[in-house]
Amino acid sequence: MIRLFHLPLSPFCRKVRLSLAEKTLQVELVEERFWERNTDFLRRNPAGKVPVLKFGDLILSESAAICEYLEDMYPEPSLMPSDPIARHEVRRMVSWFDDKFHNEVTSKLLYERIYKKLSGRGDPVTENLRAGKQALKYHIDYLGWLLEHRNWVAGNKMTLADFAAAAHFSSLDYFHLPSGNSDSDVGYASDVDWNRNAAVKDWYAKIKSRPAFRGILTDLVPGFTRSPHYANLDF
Amino acid sequence: MIRLFHLPLSPFCRKVRLSLAEKTLQVELVEERFWERNTDFLRRNPAGKVPVLKFGDLILSESAAICEYLEDMYPEPSLMPSDPIARHEVRRMVSWFDDKFHNEVTSKLLYERIYKKLSGRGDPVTENLRAGKQALKYHIDYLGWLLEHRNWVAGNKMTLADFAAAAHFSSLDYFHLPSGNSDSDVGYASDVDWNRNAAVKDWYAKIKSRPAFRGILTDLVPGFTRSPHYANLDF
Repeated sequence: MIRLFHLPLSPFCRKVRLSLAEKTLQVELVEERFWERNTDFLRRNPAGKVPVLKFGDLILSESAAICEYLEDMYPEPSLMPSDPIARHEVRRMVSWFDDKFHNEVTSKLLYERIYKKLSGRGDPVTENLRAGKQALKYHIDYLGWLLEHRNWVAGNKMTLADFAAAAHFSSLDYFHLPSGNSDSDVGYASDVDWNRNAAVKDWYAKIKSRPAFRGILTDLVPGFTRSPHYANLDF
Repeated sequence: MIRLFHLPLSPFCRKVRLSLAEKTLQVELVEERFWERNTDFLRRNPAGKVPVLKFGDLILSESAAICEYLEDMYPEPSLMPSDPIARHEVRRMVSWFDDKFHNEVTSKLLYERIYKKLSGRGDPVTENLRAGKQALKYHIDYLGWLLEHRNWVAGNKMTLADFAAAAHFSSLDYFHLPSGNSDSDVGYASDVDWNRNAAVKDWYAKIKSRPAFRGILTDLVPGFTRSPHYANLDF
């Protein structure tokens, strides 16, 4: 039995869940509040963070390393091209989302709103929310520009880079903005303005409708209201 | 001709330089002050950071993606094992250093001291230096524990994980601490206390004496004094 220690809204965990689902590997999900620094959990991963994937006695951590392992062990269906230049582009885009997008957007919006509440570390800092929202616009524009030149995030085939990107977008899209904060003119009650770029919206609609995405769309996180369009395939 | 846009003390650039040197690929180094956000440079890498590797018209960025590309294209001498579990361990340890060690140690010590001065963003924050110094002790202990169970950072062969680790340690070891700040009892005038753990010192001595390390040991950064033991193989 494969067991994934995770948090439902962590984009790093979602990327691993999407890879597992695409490769039709059954997994048992175990929620792990890593900030409580449970001793058993630290034994599994001294970095003290999720995701951690357990195959019997084998314990894997670090989402990029886990996804590469899944690709090495279960190469079909493939989430990596075979050409070295195309592989580089997949890895560059995974880093783009997991490093740059994560620091500039996800940590500024999602972590401010959700993890601070969950871990009791106070209220969101308005300046961070503002910076995250501004950076998200820039990132949507960059992704839109890429998607005007290729079918998927890293080329003309769907790869791990699409899962990395969709993991961040789906986590952001979960959180229902309190009515006073939502931009009523854009028609979306999450941080993501899906009207900003048609190519980005089409791409997300395409990936959202894949069978591998179903698990993520059924997530419900106690204490946080889901945005009304979150699981809607026609959003 | 291969050209690497880099900064001499960036551990991410050093990891790429070590991989190139180990694979005996000749490279021209071009120093890139990424914080000046030069337009040509942003065209090469919209993430606006180093390293960027240029093979003719091909432009590669993100150090992890670059090293995997070098491994895909120039598999000998190999810096990655062939077994999927061993490959996972290499990638986990690369992330350990480039993510956790970087955030907890390198950014708190090296960036506080060097990049703030270079980019004119003020004086080091004492609290960051103290936190970085404390975290470095913990990291040396963890690495020492690993090296008591294996010959190299990720197993019994030298891999990319050793270059990732050595890149961070060598950058930290460059900076000569002003005499008032150095711990005279440990005998080293950099942030790294090589007396803390014998296994870590032996490992660093081993990797430091490899031909691939020579380029890094001859680095001289104007405006910053090199610690006296920096290039010494018997330190």
